[in-house]
Amino acid sequence: MPLRLDASDTGFADAFAALVDARRESDADVSRDVAAILQRVRTEGDAALHALTLQFDRHDLDATGWRVSAEECRAALDGLDTELRIALELAAARIGDFHARQKPQDSESVDSAGVRLGSRWRGVDAAGVYVPGGRAAYPSSVLMNAIPAKVAGVERLVMVTPTPGGEVNPLVLAAASLAGVDEVWRVGGAQAIAALAYGTDRITPVDVVTGPGNAWVAEAKRQLYGVVGIDMVAGPSEIVVVADGANDPDWIAADLLSQAEHDPTSQSILFTDDVGFADRVAEAVERTLATLSTEATARTSWNDNGAIVTVPALTEAIRLVDRLAPEHLELAVADPQPLFDKVRHAGSVFLGRHTPEAVGDYVAGPNHVLPTGRRARFSSGLSVLDFMKRTSFLACDESSLAKIGPAAVALAGAEGLPAHALSVGIRLK
Amino acid sequence: MPLRLDASDTGFADAFAALVDARRESDADVSRDVAAILQRVRTEGDAALHALTLQFDRHDLDATGWRVSAEECRAALDGLDTELRIALELAAARIGDFHARQKPQDSESVDSAGVRLGSRWRGVDAAGVYVPGGRAAYPSSVLMNAIPAKVAGVERLVMVTPTPGGEVNPLVLAAASLAGVDEVWRVGGAQAIAALAYGTDRITPVDVVTGPGNAWVAEAKRQLYGVVGIDMVAGPSEIVVVADGANDPDWIAADLLSQAEHDPTSQSILFTDDVGFADRVAEAVERTLATLSTEATARTSWNDNGAIVTVPALTEAIRLVDRLAPEHLELAVADPQPLFDKVRHAGSVFLGRHTPEAVGDYVAGPNHVLPTGRRARFSSGLSVLDFMKRTSFLACDESSLAKIGPAAVALAGAEGLPAHALSVGIRLK
Repeated sequence: MPLRLDASDTGFADAFAALVDARRESDADVSRDVAAILQRVRTEGDAALHALTLQFDRHDLDATGWRVSAEECRAALDGLDTELRIALELAAARIGDFHARQKPQDSESVDSAGVRLGSRWRGVDAAGVYVPGGRAAYPSSVLMNAIPAKVAGVERLVMVTPTPGGEVNPLVLAAASLAGVDEVWRVGGAQAIAALAYGTDRITPVDVVTGPGNAWVAEAKRQLYGVVGIDMVAGPSEIVVVADGANDPDWIAADLLSQAEHDPTSQSILFTDDVGFADRVAEAVERTLATLSTEATARTSWNDNGAIVTVPALTEAIRLVDRLAPEHLELAVADPQPLFDKVRHAGSVFLGRHTPEAVGDYVAGPNHVLPTGRRARFSSGLSVLDFMKRTSFLACDESSLAKIGPAAVALAGAEGLPAHALSVGIRLK
Repeated sequence: MPLRLDASDTGFADAFAALVDARRESDADVSRDVAAILQRVRTEGDAALHALTLQFDRHDLDATGWRVSAEECRAALDGLDTELRIALELAAARIGDFHARQKPQDSESVDSAGVRLGSRWRGVDAAGVYVPGGRAAYPSSVLMNAIPAKVAGVERLVMVTPTPGGEVNPLVLAAASLAGVDEVWRVGGAQAIAALAYGTDRITPVDVVTGPGNAWVAEAKRQLYGVVGIDMVAGPSEIVVVADGANDPDWIAADLLSQAEHDPTSQSILFTDDVGFADRVAEAVERTLATLSTEATARTSWNDNGAIVTVPALTEAIRLVDRLAPEHLELAVADPQPLFDKVRHAGSVFLGRHTPEAVGDYVAGPNHVLPTGRRARFSSGLSVLDFMKRTSFLACDESSLAKIGPAAVALAGAEGLPAHALSVGIRLK
């Protein structure tokens, strides 16, 4: 049974604090294993990739081929059934449109002292996208990671994906083709992240690595942060639904279960101001669970991590939601804007009764790679900015340096840095 | 003696590759020591801070006080001599102006399907700025870290700084007062970063931690990345100067030494198309070194890590500069724009003969916290964005969900996620 809390109960503050602090992330310490794999790929290169792929993915790269060719990807796209092809193309187009609006503007100005200064954005040269094999091999993840990179102007976009037993996932290849991925390598795990960061004879290194993965992949990205840029380390997925009693309980139950079916560690939380509605949703969840092929996973997630919180008024829920800083937040009310105006911390917000979170997972346009585990307090979903970097610039002439230079000389002196002071002072008449 | 390379020599490619790959960052593995300190602060809180401060900074926090009050900071500001006060105020005003222009715009639109979608930016609730004690306690660093946070709208800005032997640095306190820092705590090292991330009874946790520090501080930030947001892990400082023969060799020598005096591991590299000029700069460096109070540090840096590279033409230098992706790049020529247009990778660029890098360290406006160690390939200087996060949002109504929903149902089905499909499908008539 999921947790049931009522904000008007004594003991609520402590119980809610425990919910906020509950850690669902694995404590498994794979850091030493991962460090060893990274070091091995760094020193042995392709030989390490070959051996580790044989060990973990049970296929011989020299036999299956190291890469999936552009032609194979294109063939996978051409082989999709029409409905799926149209769906994938709609998703790609909408994701492209949304992310194109994220492209930052260069700026430049000349200030009152006559100093010219500004910022210039450029895409990174090369980016790598990790795509998990097996159950979590989602074509939607390929689009969500690859398209922002392409919009950013990345010239070389590399995909790495394990192909356990040598088997490729045609949907993933089709998405790679549609998104304009330039290279696809059949390697996975921490060894694939190491190859992208350090490079091997076969794989030229990249500048940024993004994409979801298991604990080994996440730890490899964390250890290589600084050698390459990475996206935020991601934990189990989560949804918070704020709903009044006028919703259809079956709709809200489906929304809660759409997170629960991802993984046993996923979390779904309902806030409502209507106790009767809370009961109806709880019943609807049980009814719906029985119909799902993902029942076992969803049931474990819901029973272990799910929660229903009743509050006197929905506006009070928002204060509690901010403490959770959820990855996904649905505001399932007729007029969601006043509630949304109060929200400070959430990865992505879904407004109104007709905006299920899942529509955002696929086709709406905003990215579905979002901060988890309360990280929406300080971080943002994946965007074009993750594949770009900013260079600031500055130009003084004799006159403008004369205006601002003396202050720099004074500060350099106070900091005990005489060459700093000299480099400015020597240019002042 | 610094390295001398000529791009037309045989063997240049290998020698330059070695320069690019040379690692100047400490290999000292402090990760286990740091992990122990973080764990101790996490479990013991203020008692750990007290004990570690006694051990490392040799003062008793209960005797010296845990905090520096706002009044003490204000008194330090009021006690500055007039020239320094004016210089610090000019710097703060210009840094504020530059960073105010970085504030991102919220965006919102309704697309052709009738879907309303967009992004909203908010400052984080609280940020912590680390300020080193001792030699590297720079008031300019306080301004460069604190002002972007304030511009971002951070409500609670916390400074932590070690006060070895109990001694505070009045310049740092003055800068904190000017920048609007809300709390100053006399703790430093990995233990200060742990206190900011986990919180203690005395110190409420923050959401983002920035600021320079030694190897322990850098490793603490790396290990706590994800618990809090952090700025890029920084390595030794570096400058590349691209200069033609028409420059005054003394000016360029001062620029090279302004990086060299920071630290023995700093790096200064000159690219020029004039061999005679290269010789004159080398002589000027020797002459200038003898005049500096920072001679020992600057000489070690210049001899161990410095380089002078002669190239047939300065345009060819830019291709080489991009491989170094330097933190600071000076283009000391009469018309720098054509060279600047070709630059892809640099943290900050200083254009023309009258723009010494040091003017950017203090008063120009752009941030002086910049990516080092070739990280300008994928990362950017500190900015207002480091203290903000973006929430995406989405609103469908019955009509727009009818248009894009079926594609989401199809993709969810293909990914084997029935509750995802159901949550959309159940809302379609």
